[in-house]
Order: sequence, then C-alpha cells, then structure tokens
Amino acid sequence: MLDICLLGTGGMMPLPDRWLTSALIRFNGKMILVDCGEGTQITLRNVEWGFKSIEAICITHFHADHVAGLPGLLLTIGNSGREETLKIIGPRGLKKVVECLTYISPQLPFELELIEVDDCDNRSIDINGISIEYILLDHNITCFGYSFSLKRPGKFDVDKANKSGVPQRIWSKLQKGEEVIYEGKIYKPDMVLGEARRGLKVSYCTDTRPTEAMVDFINESDLFVCEGMYGTDDKLKKAIEKKHMLFSEASQLALRGNVKEMWLTHFSPSITSPEEFIDSAVSIFKNTVIGQDLMKKTLRFDD
Amino acid sequence: MLDICLLGTGGMMPLPDRWLTSALIRFNGKMILVDCGEGTQITLRNVEWGFKSIEAICITHFHADHVAGLPGLLLTIGNSGREETLKIIGPRGLKKVVECLTYISPQLPFELELIEVDDCDNRSIDINGISIEYILLDHNITCFGYSFSLKRPGKFDVDKANKSGVPQRIWSKLQKGEEVIYEGKIYKPDMVLGEARRGLKVSYCTDTRPTEAMVDFINESDLFVCEGMYGTDDKLKKAIEKKHMLFSEASQLALRGNVKEMWLTHFSPSITSPEEFIDSAVSIFKNTVIGQDLMKKTLRFDD
Repeated sequence: MLDICLLGTGGMMPLPDRWLTSALIRFNGKMILVDCGEGTQITLRNVEWGFKSIEAICITHFHADHVAGLPGLLLTIGNSGREETLKIIGPRGLKKVVECLTYISPQLPFELELIEVDDCDNRSIDINGISIEYILLDHNITCFGYSFSLKRPGKFDVDKANKSGVPQRIWSKLQKGEEVIYEGKIYKPDMVLGEARRGLKVSYCTDTRPTEAMVDFINESDLFVCEGMYGTDDKLKKAIEKKHMLFSEASQLALRGNVKEMWLTHFSPSITSPEEFIDSAVSIFKNTVIGQDLMKKTLRFDD
Repeated sequence: MLDICLLGTGGMMPLPDRWLTSALIRFNGKMILVDCGEGTQITLRNVEWGFKSIEAICITHFHADHVAGLPGLLLTIGNSGREETLKIIGPRGLKKVVECLTYISPQLPFELELIEVDDCDNRSIDINGISIEYILLDHNITCFGYSFSLKRPGKFDVDKANKSGVPQRIWSKLQKGEEVIYEGKIYKPDMVLGEARRGLKVSYCTDTRPTEAMVDFINESDLFVCEGMYGTDDKLKKAIEKKHMLFSEASQLALRGNVKEMWLTHFSPSITSPEEFIDSAVSIFKNTVIGQDLMKKTLRFDD
C-alpha cells in the first residue's frame, strides 16, 4: 500500500488559491516529499500526515518554485522533534544550493545527507523499502524526473521452505524479508518465498519537454504525475521555448508508457481552470485526471 | 495620506490560516514592505496593490520567518515589469543573506540596492518623501525596528511669498516643494510656505523585548505595530528567554510612547485566538487592536 498526495499544482509562482507543485508519498510509515517551493510547508500542514516521518526530499531542479521552501520546511521538521538524518536528493550543485538556502536557518536538530544525482550514473536509491530511480529531463536547467517503486516479495512457499531445509522457527523472519543466522548457518528470504510479485510504481516528471527516454522510465506506472503547463495545442511554440509540456504531450507519454493513470499538474498561472482543457488530454489518454491541491489516492497491490 | 496593510500576523512558521508577520505601507503611489517571510508574496497578491511599486523592503532581522520569502518575491516583482532599482534595507550582513537567498533566482530585470544599517549610525533614509528611521531592538540576533514618517509641509502663505519677492508664476512649483531657478535667481519652498505641519508616523517593532529606547522611538506615532508573541503574563519567563513580548508589555510601550493606536501582531503559533487575550492589553492601553491578516487602515493628516 502506498499513499500519494498532491500538495500543490501551480507552476512559476504560488497563488492564493493554488500552491506550488509538489507531492508527498507515504509508505511503511515513512514519507518522501518531491520538491519544496515557497509555501509547501503550509499545504503539507493541511495534509495532516505530520512532518517528522519525512525520510527524504527529492528535488527535481533548482528553480525557486521547486526549492525555495526548503529553509522553512527544515526548521518546521526540526520543530516536529525529528532527530534522525534526513536525505535530500537532487541534481549536482545540491550541496551549494542547500548551503545557501539554509544560511538563514539556525542549527537543525538533525543531520542532512545530501545526495547529488547525475545523468551518467545508474544507481537507484533505497528509502525504507522504496526504490527511487531518476532520469534526466529536458528543461532549461538540469532537471530530474523520479520514480518510486515499492517492491512486493513473493508468497510464502511451504514446499520450498521444507525443501531448502529451513527450520520452522525462523520462517516468519524470512517471510518479512530478513536474513537470519541460525545455529551457525545463513538463511535468506528467497529460500522460503516464491517469485517476487508486481509491486507499485509512481513516476513524477516536471518540468520538461517530452523525451523518448521518459516512455521507458514511466513504463507501467500505477500513477504517472506529469506536468501540463499549457492546456491547448496552440501554445506549442511557447512550450518549446519555455521547455514545458502541453496537456496533449503529457497524454501521449502516458499512453505510450502504458501507465494506469495520469495526474496533470504544474499549471501555468495564466490557466484559471485547468479542467476546461481536459478533453485535449482525455481524447489521447483516457485515465487522465486534472490535479488539484490536496488530491489524495491510496494505491494497493494487485490482489 | 498613508495606507497600511498587515499582510500576516504569525510568528515562527506560516500556518494555513495565518501568514507570517509583515506589513505593506503605501504613500504617494509607492510602497514599502516590512519583512518578507515564506508566503508573503501570496498574501501580498490578496491585497491587490500590485508588486511593481514596491520601492523598498525593510528587513527587521535574518530569521527565516522574516526573510525566507525574498527570492520568490523578487522573481514576482521582476515578472510585474519592474525595471527600477529596488532598495533592501536591513542589518549588517544583508549583502551575504541576499546573495545566498537569491542563489536560486535567475537574473532579475532590476538592480538591487542593499543598505546595511547599523546601531551606531544615526541616519534616516528617504524613500519618495517618507523618512525611514531605525532602532536596534533586543532580540537573540541583531534586529531593528523601523519608523516611517510622512512629512507635511506648511500651508501656502501669500504674505510671505509677496514679502520674499517671489514671482507669482513660480508659486505653484514652490508649493509642491520644488526648488526653482527663475531669471537667474534661486527660490526655495520655505519662501512661500508656513511652518511644517504635523505629518504621519507609523512605527513597527518585532521581534524584541521591550526597551527604554523604544519609548522615544515610537513617540506620538499615529500607528504603532508591535509584536505580542504571548497573550498572558504567566508567559513572562518564556518571553524573556525567547526575547519576545507579552501583550501587556507591548501596551505599556504604547502608553508611554503616547501613540494614537497600537496593532498587535507576531502571535505565537500556540495561540489560536489572540482576541481572547485582548483584555490584558486594553486594560493598559485602550486603543489596542488585535492584528488580523489583511487588516488595512488609511491614515490622514490632522485637518
């Protein structure tokens, strides 16, 4: 099970009725925040999932509308009583950005672990059972998309456990995914589990032009959160110039990536009612939803 | 005439129903903003006085709740079409703070003039006819209070103009306060004007313990905007420790400073309804008003 909440859906600048684009993912009692613009800590307070369990913050890029809320949020997380290290993941240059922004924050009661990701490396980062992958997008500064995969182990297989000669008293620990040393021998979870089952995948891509690589990256996501800066196709020239996407371009990606559902977000401040333009997305990819501030969904495993 | 709007009334952290403490002063078609915490640009948008005419931003001190909104606001002022230099006034260290915070802001379409004020100097800064003075307060980092005085020239005095031999065709320019060179001779406004009349004065003091010097500084203000972090006197120990004020302490200052009216602001996040504690202020200084987000007032000259 994985919960996701869209904290805001605005691009460029926070508005009185639309917070800046950002999302919160909750799983196994922990949370990951994606982006932190001005005001994100305020909308986060409305979600009522607390601040203390935020394990990591993924920053897509260093434009102010995606990162300027960091100093205030870090202070508020500090006030929530957190003492455990908090990870911040972002493009190269993250250390300098965080150093600058937190110049006005007094000492925090927790450590920051800053992880700079690179378009060349091919790592995935594990946060409490969720695997984070990232992809370089096509914006006017270095910008990454993220995917969050919650793995699901295979079913417990009694025959396999017996055949592997695993003592019954350590079955439950192995079933939970723990490695066990018992009477001098090492036992691993795959000695008692069947093949891994389909997990859950959320992918998140703002701010960017559509790219071929994104199609693979978002493949078979349960939920694809994607920017839709402009509603109508006549804004193509502007979208190309500003390195953003049309609703129809996002839908093409969702269709080709074979995702289950897409949420559009990061609307231009010039769009008052993004719902007006939903047809241009739904006509291409049916399961398109126009994002709204504080929209939530619980994703569950298949059966 | 001078308009003032309280943009927010919260201390420490922005809340869904209370913006951070900040104020906007409008006069002669220009504006001065005092403090800029996270979200100030959003509440500013609600005021509907625009962004472009903000001539100066006075920063009281460099705690995040008073300054972290700067990068976003500067970008938004840039988007409003401003090209004229914008002044930012604040304690020593301002240049470094602004340099750090604007690291994530791309180049702005206007220049910044950064004015670092000092407790030793005795200058006042003139912004479009308003005179800004400042006073060192008693907080746990360097913090300044500000006062804003809109001067009012004397009445036009026909006898004086005639006695001074001022040609009638330049009377109106002199009346407007302009110096005029006419037929090789210099004429000054005081050659046609009576004694300067009482102007308007707004003083603004957060975050601080009460100090003796503040009594003189706020003397005879038309409006005194003052912090009231805690409503009840049993919080005195905490107020001393955190270097903040009780409602009753603010009222004592207002009384001794002989101000016309006081607005309390900068309430602790632990206070849900500051109105509940108004008695402890009003019993000392009658014209106390509990500040509310977006509260406005127009101050007018005496007659």
